[in-house]
Amino acid sequence: MMTARIEADYLLDTAYPLQEAAAALAREQSCGAFAAAAGLGDAAAREARAAARVEALEDLGPVAAPALPHAGRRSEPHRRAALTLSWPLETLGASVPNLMTTVAGNLFERPEAAGLKLTALRLPRAFAAAYPGPAFGITGTRRLAGVEGRPLIGAIVKPSVGYTPAQTATLTHLLCGAGVDFIKDDALQADGPSCPFEERVRAVLDVVDEHAQRTGRRVMVAFNLTGSVDEMRARHDLVLELGGTCLMVSLNAVGLAGLEALRRHSQLPIHGDRAGWGLYDRHPMLGIAFPAWQVFWRLLGCDQMHLNGFGNALCEPDASVVQSARACQAPLFAQKPMAVMPVLSAGQTARQVPATWASLQNTDLIYAAGGGIMTHPDGPGAGVAALREAWEAAMSGTPLAVFARTRPALAAALQAATRP
Amino acid sequence: MMTARIEADYLLDTAYPLQEAAAALAREQSCGAFAAAAGLGDAAAREARAAARVEALEDLGPVAAPALPHAGRRSEPHRRAALTLSWPLETLGASVPNLMTTVAGNLFERPEAAGLKLTALRLPRAFAAAYPGPAFGITGTRRLAGVEGRPLIGAIVKPSVGYTPAQTATLTHLLCGAGVDFIKDDALQADGPSCPFEERVRAVLDVVDEHAQRTGRRVMVAFNLTGSVDEMRARHDLVLELGGTCLMVSLNAVGLAGLEALRRHSQLPIHGDRAGWGLYDRHPMLGIAFPAWQVFWRLLGCDQMHLNGFGNALCEPDASVVQSARACQAPLFAQKPMAVMPVLSAGQTARQVPATWASLQNTDLIYAAGGGIMTHPDGPGAGVAALREAWEAAMSGTPLAVFARTRPALAAALQAATRP
Repeated sequence: MMTARIEADYLLDTAYPLQEAAAALAREQSCGAFAAAAGLGDAAAREARAAARVEALEDLGPVAAPALPHAGRRSEPHRRAALTLSWPLETLGASVPNLMTTVAGNLFERPEAAGLKLTALRLPRAFAAAYPGPAFGITGTRRLAGVEGRPLIGAIVKPSVGYTPAQTATLTHLLCGAGVDFIKDDALQADGPSCPFEERVRAVLDVVDEHAQRTGRRVMVAFNLTGSVDEMRARHDLVLELGGTCLMVSLNAVGLAGLEALRRHSQLPIHGDRAGWGLYDRHPMLGIAFPAWQVFWRLLGCDQMHLNGFGNALCEPDASVVQSARACQAPLFAQKPMAVMPVLSAGQTARQVPATWASLQNTDLIYAAGGGIMTHPDGPGAGVAALREAWEAAMSGTPLAVFARTRPALAAALQAATRP
Repeated sequence: MMTARIEADYLLDTAYPLQEAAAALAREQSCGAFAAAAGLGDAAAREARAAARVEALEDLGPVAAPALPHAGRRSEPHRRAALTLSWPLETLGASVPNLMTTVAGNLFERPEAAGLKLTALRLPRAFAAAYPGPAFGITGTRRLAGVEGRPLIGAIVKPSVGYTPAQTATLTHLLCGAGVDFIKDDALQADGPSCPFEERVRAVLDVVDEHAQRTGRRVMVAFNLTGSVDEMRARHDLVLELGGTCLMVSLNAVGLAGLEALRRHSQLPIHGDRAGWGLYDRHPMLGIAFPAWQVFWRLLGCDQMHLNGFGNALCEPDASVVQSARACQAPLFAQKPMAVMPVLSAGQTARQVPATWASLQNTDLIYAAGGGIMTHPDGPGAGVAALREAWEAAMSGTPLAVFARTRPALAAALQAATRP
């Protein structure tokens, strides 16, 4: 995806003539606005050097109704277009926050935009040089978790809130005993007075340590340290000191500069939770589509990216799930892929495994299926076994039902799962 | 707005029975998900302590079509409701990033939400104690700018990109000479290779210093230091060292933890640019309405908040402009108002002044009208004079046309302004 200029693709709905709308958006985000005056140099030369360019504009046909209100004063029927704008690197430099302002700033307020979605982003190599990307990524996560050749099987601590540190440790004990590879805090649980971060980390890592000493396997726990920069750094230090192997942060809550500050300080993998993603991407014609959104966080150094899974309990369609997981694994730059490990979650059971495998054809992911594990009729241990068996079945090309004939854990899971 | 629990108001569209939808949203953001197990305590007691509550639910009637796709499997006609949810402070504590995850996290992905907009936020006093709020706000900005009894008249450096530091200084010289109180960098201009931050700040502050020595008036310049936490701190130090009096940051680009880190370090007022706001608030049934969105940034310490003005060049209706400016000035807590100074911008001229005054009935704002100043037929000095005269007219209850009879600058501005 390397380019000489910064390139951004958009879907645009507009009531204006397409060329006029595209040109207005390019001007808004570069050389736009008011008149020149003496001593301000040659305007034409400045524009030639600094202006955003319309690189491509494809008419996708009429749309019935505008996605957004107040879309200009024109009365032409609305049309949809695929638009590519580009900017010279020289005007902003390789700066992720300023990239955000440039490609996803005031454009959303333009009257020419009756709908605007940023769908893809291609960047000059200078961004690869300026940003570290994931320190651990897929390889480092596998190494720390001690899992190769299959997905990590994970669970999220639920209920989201209300557990004390001791209760969280009890659940951790249960999940470790069941054989999970990965556990994470819920996005709602960081450092509340009823479950303080330090007390929770100590209680949970005691359990993890005890389990590791007994079995030789250290379960990876992603502790939610979402907070201020100073809080996140101090919490990182605590987790590191106590032998923890993963951090979790709510990306949209801390923001780009917050994640960057954490990454520059961190010696542990960072699990990115995307709570609030629906605000950015649920509307098909407003915001930032996941394949563009994830570029920002990968540059800054996110190692694992939380997604929804197939047939999820939320409202993301499977096609979007596949596109998102593939985006995480696809290289950002040929020389510096910066791949982030996708985490499939939200109502996952053994039943969704074959579709997941069929779509990705690899196991470089975390399969988070807490409900699927905890509700197995023969207990959490059978729940984890059933998930591993489902992955073995899928990877060997065997239908689940066939594989389950000789695997009672998988058979019981399939019988119990009500969600198709 | 003080409350014992955290309270959030939403507009909700749903195809589900209203009570069921509201209960599902409350569960998702607190005690939701999978089954209990031995040793995890009394689930009912936990829910009583930690669950989010539906505080109010008002049926606003049927809606013709869902705002968002994939809104559940039901076939009931969609209805709109006004919903208030509440959370106990104990589960998250007074933490702004974790507040964001709680009130604006996974809710946007729920199938029960065919449209969801966070419209207002009320917080326990613990937030007032935990966060500093603006260090300067309206009073401090007025003091540093030396302006009382009228709005600050401001301008933004445009074109957004393409000026060298020397050209930016030339424009600053022009604007200082014209009599503006306030100048800001554009959101697109931070530290690009073709206009480096340090070089620009030095060139611009030389002009400001020279003007201050000559006239006794130090124009406030908000330098766009958007970047990483370390970059922002270093740039703050440079501006402070060189005698600058204001910083500017692109709020959505740096995020909550980024602004907090800057505020904790800063000794200067922080001008918040909201580029990207359209993504959060342009759709009437998705995202975070400005009155809720601004609460986060005020707690963290934003002193000035960039808004659109009346009859703006972008697509925000006047009713929304009024609501936004009033929200900035309204107290956040009775004992700690944390008011932020609204900045009205985007195509402002003398003509919009009476409506602005009529709506706010105060002058505690920055009126940014670069185009209106630069394009005045008698030059920028007359442009600034016309804006001041327009405010005098409005404050004295005199129609602009009457006041202009004896003020040639205002008369010429009114004749030139084509935008109503």
